[in-house]
Amino acid sequence: MAVKIERGIFRTEKRPKIESFASVVGGKEGKGPLGKYFDKVIEDSHFGKDTWEKAESRFQLETVSLAIKKAGLVKEDIDAIFSGDLINQCIGSAYGLRELEIPFLGLYGACSTMAEGMLLSALITDSGAVDRSAAVTSSHFSTAERQFRFPLSYGGQRTPTSQWTCTASGAAIISSECGEIEIIGGCIGKITDMGISDINNMGSAMAPAAAETIRRYLTATGTDPNDYDAIVTGDLGIVGSRLLVEFLQKQGIDISAQHFDCGAMIFDPEKQDTHCGGSGCGCSGSVMCGYFLPSMVSGERKNVLFAATGALMSPMSLQQGETIPTISHLVHLGRVK
Amino acid sequence: MAVKIERGIFRTEKRPKIESFASVVGGKEGKGPLGKYFDKVIEDSHFGKDTWEKAESRFQLETVSLAIKKAGLVKEDIDAIFSGDLINQCIGSAYGLRELEIPFLGLYGACSTMAEGMLLSALITDSGAVDRSAAVTSSHFSTAERQFRFPLSYGGQRTPTSQWTCTASGAAIISSECGEIEIIGGCIGKITDMGISDINNMGSAMAPAAAETIRRYLTATGTDPNDYDAIVTGDLGIVGSRLLVEFLQKQGIDISAQHFDCGAMIFDPEKQDTHCGGSGCGCSGSVMCGYFLPSMVSGERKNVLFAATGALMSPMSLQQGETIPTISHLVHLGRVK
Repeated sequence: MAVKIERGIFRTEKRPKIESFASVVGGKEGKGPLGKYFDKVIEDSHFGKDTWEKAESRFQLETVSLAIKKAGLVKEDIDAIFSGDLINQCIGSAYGLRELEIPFLGLYGACSTMAEGMLLSALITDSGAVDRSAAVTSSHFSTAERQFRFPLSYGGQRTPTSQWTCTASGAAIISSECGEIEIIGGCIGKITDMGISDINNMGSAMAPAAAETIRRYLTATGTDPNDYDAIVTGDLGIVGSRLLVEFLQKQGIDISAQHFDCGAMIFDPEKQDTHCGGSGCGCSGSVMCGYFLPSMVSGERKNVLFAATGALMSPMSLQQGETIPTISHLVHLGRVK
Repeated sequence: MAVKIERGIFRTEKRPKIESFASVVGGKEGKGPLGKYFDKVIEDSHFGKDTWEKAESRFQLETVSLAIKKAGLVKEDIDAIFSGDLINQCIGSAYGLRELEIPFLGLYGACSTMAEGMLLSALITDSGAVDRSAAVTSSHFSTAERQFRFPLSYGGQRTPTSQWTCTASGAAIISSECGEIEIIGGCIGKITDMGISDINNMGSAMAPAAAETIRRYLTATGTDPNDYDAIVTGDLGIVGSRLLVEFLQKQGIDISAQHFDCGAMIFDPEKQDTHCGGSGCGCSGSVMCGYFLPSMVSGERKNVLFAATGALMSPMSLQQGETIPTISHLVHLGRVK
């Protein structure tokens, strides 16, 4: 049984394992610095479908199916699946996973969804209710851009702090028994809102949530950054990452040597015109499942914190004068000895 | 530790309890047949705010705050909160609960959210990671109608199968120790899509999901409808309820004597011009927390299945020619002896 350390912070008892994982990305992500690490690169942004929303659904289906296949499993082996995405009413997930007929738990955590899904998968495994569950998420540049910002054909200028929503998906299979990476614990995020309302500066809006979650976990577990091989955030991007490190330094916590941000890593800002980096649920989903988890299986990294962040606003809430509430969920991953 | 019965179906071991619950509804719901059962009726559809979205957020905050207060607790006693709603990006939940600073897990289950939240609350309690968590949800006629159907001022004719989205919220506090109602088990729903694409006939779209979830739970647990005092669905409405009973009868399961539907109960279709009944996350949320849970505390009902249903489409997915995927999550509630 999991052990509550304090409010929202826990250690698992049975140490649920990550049995398998997969990542599928779009063409631009495939041309980025991490391109060679992803399982599949799909050049066609429509992925053979007639709309981008249907393409995003196919990304999710492809990714979770691949994760299941890589583990030598069939869909009937998965007891439950957690999924969510950014499209209104999370249709990327519902339509993508419909045909799998796996018991389905819909999430809305914006770009924190991969961490939220892994955290809840670990807890329902520790509860004994499931033997195997999956966490999957996706994003798509074209579904996000036209929903949150401008019509694609408008061709607007992007501000220097803006990030590029990744066309990408990541999936992990969490098992009570099998796997070389274990989920040691986690921290459920609190909604944090520092009053930022610029939809083109999401990294700055989300950095305080990541700082708060990382600080809470380190404090509650009595650990410090040097205990970890990597402290990975989701999609703070270049500006947000700098802020995160500064916020924590002001609180006496220096993560500068351990910090990686999936959004800052996935593109080459000079060559790919992506300004502050990548974003979207699929950014941390694909980089965690394509780059970091394999580095744990290989033994290169043994003790990793994964704190994905999400911005919980909508275009309508900003039009109504609201600021951007954000959240960061953390999962603590360890290499099985 | 919870026990897995089969894929997606479980019994809890520690029998998490429902320590407290609350319901807050709008004026029309307050004038309906169940009006006297709700904790609060708010006549002002703006709830003192300048937009309906902000009003919906206030409904959630009011309801969960009341549930916390009724248990004699303070917000710091709640380790985690599950919440979701129907507004794009679930802003009803994020903005409503922001100020509480309770570790927050966002869900998207459409109108199944109350059951999904109770189910996950029960499992993370059984896992040992939390002592107390909350499940809350809301809907608002005006936020839903203009997002999913027509501008309010358009004044369009409603079809005979249409339902009226409730302005309502329900919240339950789930505890490892205290309470007179226990969560015995549950069933995680599978996405079901029978090819219906009429957004004005959601009850018919969702009835097969409820039928499948109820059948799965009864079969897996070796129980039959006579073992329960009530089998409560969320918002199938009048037409959908009839279909549910028929579907199950064709499979040799007769729930006609035990079946209640929150959507069919909350309004008087003759006097209130609500056609097939109520709908929305807040419909089953408020009726479960305002009417059914109190009837279990009083001892009138001792063994209840609550199977809320959700329709996982969006206006855009329907415009793109898709049908309506639906889901039903079930929680099994018992009166503590």
